[in-house]
Amino acid sequence: MWPETELTRRLCIRYPIIQAGMAGGPASPKLAAAVSEAGGLGTLGAGYWPAEQLREAVRSVRRLTGRPFAVNLFVPGPYEVSVERISRVQARMRSYRRGLGLPEAIVPDQFAPSFEEQMEVVLEERVPVFSFTFGALSEYWLKALKERDIVVIGTATTVREALALEQSGVDMVVAQSGEAGGHRGTFLGRFEDALIGGMALIPAMADAVRIPVIAAGGIMDGRGIAAAMMLGAEGVQLGTSFLTCEESGAHELHQQAVLSADEESTVITRAFSGKPARGIRNRFIVEMADEEVPDYPVQNALTKDIRQAAGQQGVPEFMSMWAGQGTRLSRQLSAGLLVRTLVEETEDAVRRMTSRIGADRNQ
Amino acid sequence: MWPETELTRRLCIRYPIIQAGMAGGPASPKLAAAVSEAGGLGTLGAGYWPAEQLREAVRSVRRLTGRPFAVNLFVPGPYEVSVERISRVQARMRSYRRGLGLPEAIVPDQFAPSFEEQMEVVLEERVPVFSFTFGALSEYWLKALKERDIVVIGTATTVREALALEQSGVDMVVAQSGEAGGHRGTFLGRFEDALIGGMALIPAMADAVRIPVIAAGGIMDGRGIAAAMMLGAEGVQLGTSFLTCEESGAHELHQQAVLSADEESTVITRAFSGKPARGIRNRFIVEMADEEVPDYPVQNALTKDIRQAAGQQGVPEFMSMWAGQGTRLSRQLSAGLLVRTLVEETEDAVRRMTSRIGADRNQ
Repeated sequence: MWPETELTRRLCIRYPIIQAGMAGGPASPKLAAAVSEAGGLGTLGAGYWPAEQLREAVRSVRRLTGRPFAVNLFVPGPYEVSVERISRVQARMRSYRRGLGLPEAIVPDQFAPSFEEQMEVVLEERVPVFSFTFGALSEYWLKALKERDIVVIGTATTVREALALEQSGVDMVVAQSGEAGGHRGTFLGRFEDALIGGMALIPAMADAVRIPVIAAGGIMDGRGIAAAMMLGAEGVQLGTSFLTCEESGAHELHQQAVLSADEESTVITRAFSGKPARGIRNRFIVEMADEEVPDYPVQNALTKDIRQAAGQQGVPEFMSMWAGQGTRLSRQLSAGLLVRTLVEETEDAVRRMTSRIGADRNQ
Repeated sequence: MWPETELTRRLCIRYPIIQAGMAGGPASPKLAAAVSEAGGLGTLGAGYWPAEQLREAVRSVRRLTGRPFAVNLFVPGPYEVSVERISRVQARMRSYRRGLGLPEAIVPDQFAPSFEEQMEVVLEERVPVFSFTFGALSEYWLKALKERDIVVIGTATTVREALALEQSGVDMVVAQSGEAGGHRGTFLGRFEDALIGGMALIPAMADAVRIPVIAAGGIMDGRGIAAAMMLGAEGVQLGTSFLTCEESGAHELHQQAVLSADEESTVITRAFSGKPARGIRNRFIVEMADEEVPDYPVQNALTKDIRQAAGQQGVPEFMSMWAGQGTRLSRQLSAGLLVRTLVEETEDAVRRMTSRIGADRNQ
């Protein structure tokens, strides 16, 4: 057992290892429950789920484990519905739709599930931990979460964002470094200026805020966990590492792509959702690179059936295969075994380091 | 004293802390000698120096210290001299030249000092360590260096590059992660695909090669050193951290800019030299962002007197102020005190971590 810290005490977990809320399938109830059962914190990636699907997932996790878990949501921000951009991108994507046997595109009447309805489920179900990305949370929701003793974790890509989140009253903050896969959480300033590597971001954020910092981005094994904690993180959040676990809900081809990717395979793209996200380069990303796509969540809604059809038909060139830069270290294990392996590797890494540097102590 | 490793033994240094070869002034003989005197490895940033200036600098270091030091050079690659690009960029920069009181631009007859002449000095002076960036070294030079027992260190931004360098016969490889300041060393593929954060790059490279890996990028204090070693690096190379030392040859305004920068202040630009490099955002970088500048070293030669005049006149908006993403942690110390502080901080970080995780040992 590792000694208790503010983070493990507040989250009621044994190891400060959090499975990231990979929305869109990977972070399923099965995966979340397995991580929590093993002593980490599992997360439901619920950003794209309508309220009732979220409620069902929360209940599924609770059937599988009595341990704490988190729900991760996307905080909605302002966006523009540009008819001109929508028409242009629909025209651009027409041949892809035809290739996948999809009918002519229609503009959906809803671009994203209702955040308010999702939040009602989080509150009603009194989920143990609530994490979010894409912004700060309003006072209204923060107050409601705190009244129900729900631990609240925000996501920051810069020190400025971490300070804003701390100020708003969150309990902990994820330091999402440039290595991270999936959507960039940047909400203040341009995402291009907020791609800060973990070696620089983690200590800077740990120095700046008083709340616990959870490092995320490129962490794949115990060496990464030990390094992140060395830099000042109290915990870590791993996405890509859990994406290829047996319990992961990620598409088989997505998992295969991650397992065979190297550090040059990923790229940041807006093409799938309208928001910048890091994923494995494929035909859709390359061909759409120069297109000014509509804002999130509009573009996300427009590509939804393309992504779904690609998944059903096994066409990775049109799937959004989010992944971080650490894919060379990915492996296929059960989530429980991965957590135990991560813990052992961390201890090994610390021991090796102690015998290397600690020798100085008695001089 | 830290236990000897292959790296410290080969380099004959006490601590595996290398001062990066920041070309253009910062990595002066005074700085290199101070770092080496303190038990690290100082480096002369000689990329822009003609042979005779390099020889003088090598002799200066030797007057200041009997300890080993390195010379860092730029391996020349192919480049295009596009008259059309040169004319366009000269026209674009005309107003800057006027503002700085410079005469109409002429195209210099030499874009960079002769690499062959620089190498002759390295060999004749039998410098203890030779490090290089921007490519792999030809068999001819590698053989000549080895015959003189000069330790050779290459620079890689991806695992692919590290393997190519190992194959070529270098003794050690620097893992330059995306956080790093100054020029990107990328020589295989596009630099945009080779901006890999240290958390992902260091363990991947350490797993892939047998030669020692030296981590570089965003490392500013003992936490960073301990983290890099946790990830599998045998040593570290710090640039930005040494840039603000008393002995640094960096311009006073450059140092001030680094001391007041945060993690959002830097950007990668080709505007100053034609090669991508990370530095503090200023007017020249912003205004030239959309210009297709000539290749390195052509553009470097074309901006040389602009940078020089800006330095002489104290105009930071036209100076190339290279810096990594870790600037929040920069400080003003003597180089000797910085090395001693880094060593103590590393030991402290390891001790804190041991007491935190090592508690598990007896269970």
